[in-house]
Amino acid sequence: MSLSFQKYQGLGNDFLLIDNRHQEELLLTPEQAQHWCDRHFGVGADGVIFLLAGTGESDYRMRMYNADGSVAEMCGNGIRCLAKFIFALEGRSAGEIVRYRIDTLAGLIVPEVQADGQVTVDMGKPQLLAQQIPTTLAAADQKVIDVPLMVGDRPWLVTCVSMGNPHCVTFVENVAAVDLATLGPQFEHHPVFPQRTNTEFVQVLGSDRLRMRVWERGAGMTLACGTGACATLVAAVLTNRLSPVGNQAQATVELPGGDLHIRWDLPSQHLYMTGPALAVFSGTLP
Amino acid sequence: MSLSFQKYQGLGNDFLLIDNRHQEELLLTPEQAQHWCDRHFGVGADGVIFLLAGTGESDYRMRMYNADGSVAEMCGNGIRCLAKFIFALEGRSAGEIVRYRIDTLAGLIVPEVQADGQVTVDMGKPQLLAQQIPTTLAAADQKVIDVPLMVGDRPWLVTCVSMGNPHCVTFVENVAAVDLATLGPQFEHHPVFPQRTNTEFVQVLGSDRLRMRVWERGAGMTLACGTGACATLVAAVLTNRLSPVGNQAQATVELPGGDLHIRWDLPSQHLYMTGPALAVFSGTLP
Repeated sequence: MSLSFQKYQGLGNDFLLIDNRHQEELLLTPEQAQHWCDRHFGVGADGVIFLLAGTGESDYRMRMYNADGSVAEMCGNGIRCLAKFIFALEGRSAGEIVRYRIDTLAGLIVPEVQADGQVTVDMGKPQLLAQQIPTTLAAADQKVIDVPLMVGDRPWLVTCVSMGNPHCVTFVENVAAVDLATLGPQFEHHPVFPQRTNTEFVQVLGSDRLRMRVWERGAGMTLACGTGACATLVAAVLTNRLSPVGNQAQATVELPGGDLHIRWDLPSQHLYMTGPALAVFSGTLP
Repeated sequence: MSLSFQKYQGLGNDFLLIDNRHQEELLLTPEQAQHWCDRHFGVGADGVIFLLAGTGESDYRMRMYNADGSVAEMCGNGIRCLAKFIFALEGRSAGEIVRYRIDTLAGLIVPEVQADGQVTVDMGKPQLLAQQIPTTLAAADQKVIDVPLMVGDRPWLVTCVSMGNPHCVTFVENVAAVDLATLGPQFEHHPVFPQRTNTEFVQVLGSDRLRMRVWERGAGMTLACGTGACATLVAAVLTNRLSPVGNQAQATVELPGGDLHIRWDLPSQHLYMTGPALAVFSGTLP
């Protein structure tokens, strides 16, 4: 028995997509997913995403294993890839704008394929209070905006944002000059972050363009981090480094893996992330 | 236009195999090969191997790009994978023993598919003189066998073997305890090795079993190194840690990526390496 898959990537975050619509049981076990995600002995991927039939409230369901075989609740880059996978399965034409209601283990997510093939995902609202991050850098009910934090041998002005996970954003003159491998772990494990933290080093390139390098909690240097890009825009607005136009704040965020467009709708407080998701190749597992 | 490929791996060293028998021009450019070898934006592989029609003196020709798009002359793990790829293309049955004369940029290589599906390759003769390694650890026309070398804070007894590339072999009580990431670069760049060196840390497990961890010159820690496994057997014989039976010396060498069987035919001085090569999956490039 052989199993077809499609490989997709978004900003270098790559996934095996499997059409699992015709049965409830997942077509790979966690152990098989772990094997196929191995980059030397398998196909190689950051995770396996299964497309299942919808439930009425949803058009489709998404289930996902990480590369280590653990269950992933959701993944911003992954669900963009899934939306493009569905778009192709449904035989849609380039230029169509389609929105899918996807049931995930993190709730209903509604990615929208745009006319240019990029995909927009509602990333929810940021949380800004110190107890929500969590951090001890301010009183529990206070925000942390440009607060000095000693890391290494110097103070950094940091702004903290939770997107469901903790982010510590600091603005620098030149992100290329940041020694991420040394500083990242020092921020991650700093005692003011009881659940550790993701850290974004951000350079302002213009009124609607930011460049970011990220150290992800537990993952280290990565090519892209969707929640980090959202936190970055929020921090840029909170620190007056970027000005909203009307009731919308938005910017292109340059990451090592490519660009994301982030929009913060101020009335609803929701953040919308738009980015690429591309089919790479198709394959068959033995 | 789409292009079919098969992914194979030997000891975790993985390749895209492409049937190029029906034309002279390679079906991928170096730039395309580099893109498809990328593990996040492409398929992911250590190289691309093309099978071309033979010339009369050879049954087939092998051409290969490394992951960076440069031309590879030959690759021990790669040619084992190529032999299995041909075996499958020819519709051979498991259990058949077949030898292929393969034209490579390093000359004619003759891999033999064994009844158990493993593949044997003639790796040529070791060179043992200090000037051949090259190393300044002994006079130019002398061998280097269990010679003390200071690395880090202690002396190591090293034996030097060239398999076309330099190897420095040192035997230890427990290879798992070796701090390879620290010691490897210190051996590689030690001034006694003017062209730098590969370094093998080897534990004797029994009369025909060795365990090896390798630091490859220019590549660092890798899952397997065929020439290093050959050098390891030679060093074990030269230092009387392993005894030939009749005029054959042989051992199973355990590497992080799996086992290789190495045989040293003393009359001809040729080394024969036998190891696995497995089809992983098939795919189509857009």
